[in-house]
Parts: sequence; structure tokens; C-alpha cells
Amino acid sequence: METLLRVMSCILSVVVFCLVLVWMSAVVTSYSKQSDGTVMTKDLSGFSWTTNDPRVFNWHPVLMSFGFVLCTSQAILVFETKPFTHRTNKLIHATCHTLTLVSVIIGTVAVFRFHNEHNIRNLYSLHSWLGISTLVLYAMQYMFGFLVYLYPGVGAKLRLQVLPNHIAFGIGLVAIVGMTAVAGIMEKLAFNGSCNVNGVLHGKSVQGYLTPGCALANTAGLLLLLLVVALTST
Amino acid sequence: METLLRVMSCILSVVVFCLVLVWMSAVVTSYSKQSDGTVMTKDLSGFSWTTNDPRVFNWHPVLMSFGFVLCTSQAILVFETKPFTHRTNKLIHATCHTLTLVSVIIGTVAVFRFHNEHNIRNLYSLHSWLGISTLVLYAMQYMFGFLVYLYPGVGAKLRLQVLPNHIAFGIGLVAIVGMTAVAGIMEKLAFNGSCNVNGVLHGKSVQGYLTPGCALANTAGLLLLLLVVALTST
Repeated sequence: METLLRVMSCILSVVVFCLVLVWMSAVVTSYSKQSDGTVMTKDLSGFSWTTNDPRVFNWHPVLMSFGFVLCTSQAILVFETKPFTHRTNKLIHATCHTLTLVSVIIGTVAVFRFHNEHNIRNLYSLHSWLGISTLVLYAMQYMFGFLVYLYPGVGAKLRLQVLPNHIAFGIGLVAIVGMTAVAGIMEKLAFNGSCNVNGVLHGKSVQGYLTPGCALANTAGLLLLLLVVALTST
Repeated sequence: METLLRVMSCILSVVVFCLVLVWMSAVVTSYSKQSDGTVMTKDLSGFSWTTNDPRVFNWHPVLMSFGFVLCTSQAILVFETKPFTHRTNKLIHATCHTLTLVSVIIGTVAVFRFHNEHNIRNLYSLHSWLGISTLVLYAMQYMFGFLVYLYPGVGAKLRLQVLPNHIAFGIGLVAIVGMTAVAGIMEKLAFNGSCNVNGVLHGKSVQGYLTPGCALANTAGLLLLLLVVALTST
């Protein structure tokens, strides 16, 4: 049962990241209904780091899910499956979490840049409140882990003693990463009017239409739910 | 540390439920910007179970948070703090979870009724996808708990053997309840245009205005994040 959950976690973390990558690189579109009932679409996909290019935003979901979903899952799983020596596993754990930290910092910069360059207020949504809290708590856990388990001079006894706390807080972090991520998906889909489209779209009358972006992002969110259950239950 | 987290969990579960109750009973309002820049408001607060009354919806967040946040937290905490005899604690645990089940079933009926009575498509949003998954997984855990720990005839050895699985899956459920709940808050706030209001509101020009409903619901979501961390970390 545990092996099954671990294999599932590993696969799900890759699939969720890939779905977000596909969403942002090729699918993300905004839908807005005009007064005559026509639904206008605007392709928002692709990446850019150029000033004032709205596609700067698209780095945000990709980098956050690369860090908090893909890298973090591998960091956890390497200490559950223990495929190598303790030293190597520990190095992989630390490397994955460092990759996460770098990735989510750049991902956070991307969204602040996007807001500032397009005069959008920062930190008004629940997603942003959860996101900042998750970042702070994750950084605390990272520093704690670094100081206790990597920085030389801490005794093996203390390391072992606080290990249950490190693991328990890590599980808590997986849960709140899940909360923040689905809040982010909901926010993006709401902005773009991607779900439940009514009106005349590409010359056809639609009602309650689930756009490809909505179906894809909902699937990513649903698989993330399964990943969170699998990771927190093992 | 553990005692602090438990006291915090107990208080937070009550506070989050109360905030949702206040939001739905007295604060929830929709904001829509007209073509002349005026922001129209509509009071949506209060409760009703009458056919076609849109306030039927308001039972949904209240009953879901009463069950999945308040009752479930108490059910978990009684087995962490163990204030009474094992038999009494077990009875409280089972009663709280039964209250949860009844509450969330009625809460789910409320939202389907609201959708059907107002011709709104069911199950298109990520919140609804997560919600159905959480309900199914919670019902499975409830049945498992009932059959193994309450139904007579199961040996003490088996009960003890599968206890770690029951606890681990319970932690996973707390995480996905958190995910579903914040997705629900995001959805309601987006529908009502409650956050980041721009235009002329009650005769005053506002920009990036956080309405009372937005501030209140965001606070509930943020405290829920802390509750989920506290519950999954102990």
C-alpha cells in the first residue's frame, strides 16, 4: 500500500507540473462576453521576461508548481523510499528543496512584476494571503532544516530528537501548498472566465461550456488533491 | 508545543466557523460595476430554505464549515488530548464525525438546490470537483471507521493494526478539506466581485477596495491555513 502511494505520488507530481506547463505555454486564454452576446477570446499563452509583457505572469504558475509540487515531492519521496545511502538521500533532499526555494522566489517575483507593470493591486486575494504565509512558513522550515541537519556541529542526538517535528511540519506544509495552489488555479480561471462560458463562441452558441483551459486546470487541481492525500498519508 | 498547537486548533476551528457564519448571515454582498462606473451592491445575506430563494445557498458554506471544520477538528482533538475514558473519547469522536456527515450532506443538497432552482450548471468548477472528491473520500473513511471500530466483532489486534492507516488518511482528509474550502471561498468572492473593487461605490471613488466581505472571508481562509498546519503537524 505504501509503495503504491509513493509511486502514485511520484507520477502525480510530474503530471500536475506538466499540466500546468501545458496550460501556461499553449492553452491559457481569456473569455469575455460582449453586450451582443458574442464571447471574445484572447490567447494569453507563452512566456516572456520582457518589461510590460503580460506573459511574464505565466512564469508564476509554472515556477511555483515546479518548486512546490515537483521538487518538493521528490525531496519528500527520497526520504520515504531511501534508494541510496543516507548521505546521498540527504543531499538529494537538500538539493530538491534548494531548487524549490530558488524556483518559488523567481515565481513570486514574476507575479509582483506583472502586477506592478500593469497597475494591478498586490496582495488583495485570498490566494496571495495564503501564498505569502506558505512562503514564510516554508522558508522557516528550510532554515530550520539547514541549521539542524546541514550546518556542522549539531549533535546526532538533537537531530534525531527534532526529526518528528521536521517531518510533521513538512506534512503541514504539503497541505497548505495544496490549499494555496488550488486557490491560485481558481483565481486564474475566474479572471479568464474560462469555466461555464455562455454566449456565442467562434460562431456557435454555447451554454455552460467548459473551455479546454478550464478542463485542463481543473484536472491539474484534482490530481493535486490526490497527490496531497498520497503524500500526507504515507 | 503540542499542547499549544492543540489549544490553537480548538480555538481556530471555532473562529473560522464563526467568521463564515457572520459572513453568510450579515455581510455577504455582491458588487457589480455598471457602464457609467458606478458599483451596484446587492445584499445577499441571511438564510432561507424556501424554493427559489437565493439565500438557500448561504446554508452551504455554513454547514460545510460547521461539519468539516468545527466538528471534524473536535473529533480529531478528542483523540489527541484524551480528556475522558477511551470509551467516552471514542463516542465523542464518532458523534462529531456523524454530525459532520449529516451537516455536509445537507450543505451539499443546499448548493445543488440553489443551482437547479436558478439554472446554474452543476459541477463545472474546480471547487465542485474537489468537493465531490473530498465527500467521497470522507464517506469512505467514515465507513471504514464505523466497520472497524464501532461495529462489534472486529478483533482488538486488527483495530490496532489498521489504526496508523486510519490516522494517516485522516490527516490527508484534513489537508483536502482545507484545499476544497479555500477554493470555495475564492469562488464565492469572485462571483460577488468582493475583492479589488474599482469605481464609484456609495458616492465615493474607490480603487483596489477590499470590501468587508472580502476581508472577512480572506481572514477565515488564512486562519483555516493555520488550523490545517496545526492539525496536520500534531
